[in-house]
Amino acid sequence: MQHLEPAQFFAMLVVMLLAAKIFGELAQRIGQPAVLGELIGGIVVGGSVLGKVDPHIETIHLLSELGVAILLLAIGLETDLGSMMKVGGTSVAVAIAGVVAPFGLGYAGCRMMGLDNIVAIMAGATLTATSVGITARVLSDMGKLKAPEGQVILGAAVIDDILGLVILTVVGGLVKGGVVTPSTVGLATLQAFGFLAGVLIVGRLTLPWIIRVASRFDLPGTPTILGLILALLLAWLAEKSGSARIIGAFAAGVLIRGTAKAQEIEHGITALGHFFVPLFFVAVGASVDLSALDPRNPEARMALGLGAMLIVTGVVGKMAAGYAPWWFKGDKRVIGVGMIPRGEVGLIFAQMGLARGIFDSGQFGGVTLMVIVTTFLAPPLLKVLLPKRREAEPFESDDDGIGYLVSEA
Amino acid sequence: MQHLEPAQFFAMLVVMLLAAKIFGELAQRIGQPAVLGELIGGIVVGGSVLGKVDPHIETIHLLSELGVAILLLAIGLETDLGSMMKVGGTSVAVAIAGVVAPFGLGYAGCRMMGLDNIVAIMAGATLTATSVGITARVLSDMGKLKAPEGQVILGAAVIDDILGLVILTVVGGLVKGGVVTPSTVGLATLQAFGFLAGVLIVGRLTLPWIIRVASRFDLPGTPTILGLILALLLAWLAEKSGSARIIGAFAAGVLIRGTAKAQEIEHGITALGHFFVPLFFVAVGASVDLSALDPRNPEARMALGLGAMLIVTGVVGKMAAGYAPWWFKGDKRVIGVGMIPRGEVGLIFAQMGLARGIFDSGQFGGVTLMVIVTTFLAPPLLKVLLPKRREAEPFESDDDGIGYLVSEA
Repeated sequence: MQHLEPAQFFAMLVVMLLAAKIFGELAQRIGQPAVLGELIGGIVVGGSVLGKVDPHIETIHLLSELGVAILLLAIGLETDLGSMMKVGGTSVAVAIAGVVAPFGLGYAGCRMMGLDNIVAIMAGATLTATSVGITARVLSDMGKLKAPEGQVILGAAVIDDILGLVILTVVGGLVKGGVVTPSTVGLATLQAFGFLAGVLIVGRLTLPWIIRVASRFDLPGTPTILGLILALLLAWLAEKSGSARIIGAFAAGVLIRGTAKAQEIEHGITALGHFFVPLFFVAVGASVDLSALDPRNPEARMALGLGAMLIVTGVVGKMAAGYAPWWFKGDKRVIGVGMIPRGEVGLIFAQMGLARGIFDSGQFGGVTLMVIVTTFLAPPLLKVLLPKRREAEPFESDDDGIGYLVSEA
Repeated sequence: MQHLEPAQFFAMLVVMLLAAKIFGELAQRIGQPAVLGELIGGIVVGGSVLGKVDPHIETIHLLSELGVAILLLAIGLETDLGSMMKVGGTSVAVAIAGVVAPFGLGYAGCRMMGLDNIVAIMAGATLTATSVGITARVLSDMGKLKAPEGQVILGAAVIDDILGLVILTVVGGLVKGGVVTPSTVGLATLQAFGFLAGVLIVGRLTLPWIIRVASRFDLPGTPTILGLILALLLAWLAEKSGSARIIGAFAAGVLIRGTAKAQEIEHGITALGHFFVPLFFVAVGASVDLSALDPRNPEARMALGLGAMLIVTGVVGKMAAGYAPWWFKGDKRVIGVGMIPRGEVGLIFAQMGLARGIFDSGQFGGVTLMVIVTTFLAPPLLKVLLPKRREAEPFESDDDGIGYLVSEA
């Protein structure tokens, strides 16, 4: 674990924030979402190019985790549970199809390439991930978070994150040589979904009372900080209950949305997000190792072949998921494309595969390539598919409105 | 170095922020500045009582350092260099007297208690420190940052921080057995002051141009983040030039104040400060070890004796400094009291003395006691001396105005 002096830490923040702003601005200039620029900025300052930012330094890692939590809190603040429930059936269909189709296609592809059963399972599992952070930020960029497509994607991505946890648990058990029975799978599923349901029910009952107590605090900024405390507390509780931290942060946002202080909290969280959220995307970019994809390197050629197959099956599988809810009237292509990015969730799977000795470094390179390409593909594709004009969003009081948490020209 | 998982990190932030808000609110309820509550909250959650927060964990330490930098940036944004210059002579007199008097008194007191020459020098040096963070936050709490007394204290505290660096360099040289000549002292002084002057001159010339470029960025929140980048960059540069990080952050605020984007940046930095600044004060509180001051422990009794002497000489010495500028028309008691808190600067000196083997653990305890008492004494004393009504501050557009960066009932 690398030690960091305060001055070095400041210098690293300067590099990360500058990269985010410069490349984010450049991306917008060429008509792309700022988040794409931030990811590319991360690659540039990361180990592959300039070597200025190491996302594995503990403090940088923790700040970027705080960044995702704040992003999901902000998304929760934008999420109307009622209208998400209305498209709940559609979201469930998309989420399940978005797990089954990519897993099946990826597993079959790997077996045809002659890879071991366990490698094929792990690679297939990596394909099931959806990065809610990236898609949500692009939707927010485009002012589409509240459109039916946006609600379906958001719901499906949340369900997908929970399914991802179940898969992680099951695959983790397989790798350890444990027995995977329907009851262990059922228990893992129950834990993951039970958390969200439990929090929302308990929260609805207790939060108005908490807000009343908090309203008696005179200190400026207190509502925002209490909102952040709730998000971090639920994130912690989520992990302790076998769910995912980001689910907890998201639940906090959904709960706060209904309260009297929602607008003030949203304003403060957006200001914090301006600092923390780009740190996350730059860190994701910085964790990309380009040398594993250099075609002059024989091992990298194998990685490129595996990666190409996984990209095709990954894109086709998620696009298919978009068409799964045949009854849905909206643009099914938008839903499919919105589910494509694997982002940090995919990287977590890939790194788990490497750490457990399932993937060799070439296979890890191939899976990483798939994660990068799918992550980078979705923002420009969504930009093409979505109408250019932005909808009015009720919560947006000014330019700093949360609609940003990504940026918008 | 203790490893921290994201969930643990979130839990620690929850504890720190809750302690800051609860004790800050309680302090205000009994008519004290919120910062006093945050310091006490830090003691409660720190190793001495609940043991929930360890300020030596790297990430917590780095975040609290970022907190001071943001606080000094905010103070710089409030600082009118012109009116600070007008009372510049007064500030210089206060700063120099505030170094000479406490050092002389403390050194003499230690020698009378039979302590070694080097211990007496180190203890005297610790007495020279002034914690600009704590006093500035109290002044800001009271709406007195712009009063003549506030300007003198701020100027003197900044000069004092720079003198502190010179003393650290000189004492560091003494301890290493190096030769301390007038030229080494002169060089250290020049480095420390030269940085501030250089940055302000270069900054005035280049910043309007930088702001013009930055104005062409479309991303929301960009001015705030660019302001933060400037502060972190200058903080880094300050340390590299042999000055102090907080001087760099302060200089950034002073420079930005003159630009077109000042108000927007101040607004955003205040929102970030609501999160980061309390982390710093809670961390300072958490680093207090109460057991070193338990009178049932014989070593602690020695520490209490030394501490009592240092508190008296420390308070008398700084109060004397307040009376040094005999020509000053304002309230000299306010200036003296404003210079009393040693805060984190005093702790840095004390820890250096311990680490270099100059202080034994009892002497360290005594010096720490002095740092704690002086730090905790100033807020309530200032509260008594300053008139209750708050002045209108031009920059304050709403309750969230920077005037807070501390809080105000």
